[in-house]
Amino acid sequence: MHRDDRPSAVHHPAMTERQPWSELFGPIAADLPAVDRTLQGVKDVPFPLLADLIGHVLSKSGKKLRPALTLLAGRPFAYQSNLHRLIPMASAMELLHTATLVHDDMVDDAATRRGQSTLNSFVSRGATVLVGDYLFAKSADLVAETENVRVMTLFARTLMTICDGELHQLFASFNWKQSRDEYYHRINGKTASVFSTSTESGATLAEASPEQIAALRDYGYNLGMAFQIVDDILDYVGSEAELGKPAASDLRNGTVTLPALLLMERMTDRNPIKELFESGRNDQTLADTVALIRETGVIEDSFAVAQEFSRKAIAALDPVPDGEAKTALIGLVDALVVRSF
Amino acid sequence: MHRDDRPSAVHHPAMTERQPWSELFGPIAADLPAVDRTLQGVKDVPFPLLADLIGHVLSKSGKKLRPALTLLAGRPFAYQSNLHRLIPMASAMELLHTATLVHDDMVDDAATRRGQSTLNSFVSRGATVLVGDYLFAKSADLVAETENVRVMTLFARTLMTICDGELHQLFASFNWKQSRDEYYHRINGKTASVFSTSTESGATLAEASPEQIAALRDYGYNLGMAFQIVDDILDYVGSEAELGKPAASDLRNGTVTLPALLLMERMTDRNPIKELFESGRNDQTLADTVALIRETGVIEDSFAVAQEFSRKAIAALDPVPDGEAKTALIGLVDALVVRSF
Repeated sequence: MHRDDRPSAVHHPAMTERQPWSELFGPIAADLPAVDRTLQGVKDVPFPLLADLIGHVLSKSGKKLRPALTLLAGRPFAYQSNLHRLIPMASAMELLHTATLVHDDMVDDAATRRGQSTLNSFVSRGATVLVGDYLFAKSADLVAETENVRVMTLFARTLMTICDGELHQLFASFNWKQSRDEYYHRINGKTASVFSTSTESGATLAEASPEQIAALRDYGYNLGMAFQIVDDILDYVGSEAELGKPAASDLRNGTVTLPALLLMERMTDRNPIKELFESGRNDQTLADTVALIRETGVIEDSFAVAQEFSRKAIAALDPVPDGEAKTALIGLVDALVVRSF
Repeated sequence: MHRDDRPSAVHHPAMTERQPWSELFGPIAADLPAVDRTLQGVKDVPFPLLADLIGHVLSKSGKKLRPALTLLAGRPFAYQSNLHRLIPMASAMELLHTATLVHDDMVDDAATRRGQSTLNSFVSRGATVLVGDYLFAKSADLVAETENVRVMTLFARTLMTICDGELHQLFASFNWKQSRDEYYHRINGKTASVFSTSTESGATLAEASPEQIAALRDYGYNLGMAFQIVDDILDYVGSEAELGKPAASDLRNGTVTLPALLLMERMTDRNPIKELFESGRNDQTLADTVALIRETGVIEDSFAVAQEFSRKAIAALDPVPDGEAKTALIGLVDALVVRSF
């Protein structure tokens, strides 16, 4: 259900050479191992079975994009003196993301994630739910280490926003009557809210000014929106081999994303998405719909929307002092969105 | 899976007349409506479907035992001046309890709870998980209203303890090889930890001394242990009509509780629990095992263990100033445990 930091794994033919993320993390790269150690410490529990299950979930972790955003957002401000707060916060953002994936995979009955078996594929639903709950709790415990009430509230509300977004997606399945605002609401819940909390909390803990905190929050929000739109586009333009899953899986699962919305806006004489959902989604109708999406320019239009969010992300950074961290944040927009095709 | 404040609904023949709980809540009764309002406010969300599902979960709420414990624990100290912190904390304890029940019922595939349909009986597993997650997040958000980092950490760790306890119970199903310590660990997770956090947080927010905070934590822990043991006993001595579910449901579900443990300790020549689990739990073997438990005195011995925890709960209150609240806390032990048979 969530985009899994996929761009670097997907090699779209039109893709240009991309700078490795690790280079973009330069200004905070020295502190990422502390995040890794904090995350690995989560499995140090006296209950061996729980330790094994957490270890499995954390063993093939992502690229630490969210923790890097937290640290980069704090880097231009009182960073070193607040590193003991920034590290647990950054770790909590990754753990929150991981916990939502554990529950998502159970909700979706997904068998694999990041190339390895999901928890729900080898333990019961009950155990999966409880391990996810445990990870939510542990992430809140890490946030409490910051001793900052403001980020604790922000963190709790982010989880509420995530759940709200996921519930919207769940109940909007196979409903073609959706507005672009509803789509934006859903992808804010599933992705942008976590990005904006990552950057807002980093700036807050590093004692940035209210204006700068708002700037980094807006940067995170707009980057997250662009990131998710690109992911939703890749679902249509990637091949099964590139995506590691069948192409157009969103449409197969009844999830209406931006390309499908733009197709409906564009075609006034008929509604191919309505037809697809009402057809019982046979393979031919699905292939026809995907072909329509690929050929009518809605991919390009969707990408233009993502680029618009990217521009806003970069513009938001205006109140942030120039320096290596700001350059890295701008570079991330470039790497994650602008040069993803 | 959780005891649902059942004693007042169960009328065991040996039960004496019991004081209504509402009378015991006297010293804080005037403030419970504020807790109710806070809880009802949880369903005020812009998403009508989520509002409906939360409304359903909260519509038939329990007796507010956990919120009452929070308020009573704060009552002897700086209560009025901290009421704006105590009310959200008390509400959060009830919401945490409610959220765990939502996930538990899904884990157990339970169809009813508190005499009404469970969430999982009429929406998908996915929606049930997400509504539970939302309620966890909202409870953490309420705790953040206290602006007290110590209770925020305590709250997060309590959810970790609950999950740990539930996972222990899940993985110990149909395993007769369990120690009394393992049983205590599990019931601390499922019940006593929430009781002790209720009382510890109340005392903390009302600015009790460290010694008094520890006293109220210990009171809550011991009361919770006794409360759960009584519940585990009622599962054997109540009839189906009294319990609202088949008698000995724990044994049916493979959950080994104190009476079964004591039976195994007592019978050295054979192991009836092992035999039952290995028999595939046919009705006759189950009935025979329940009869053994009822006739060999292990019910009485189990009750003696509960009473020992009750005594510790009352003894723990020593550093708490005498007054109406302390009298109520002692009365609760009496009502929930001592006079439950």
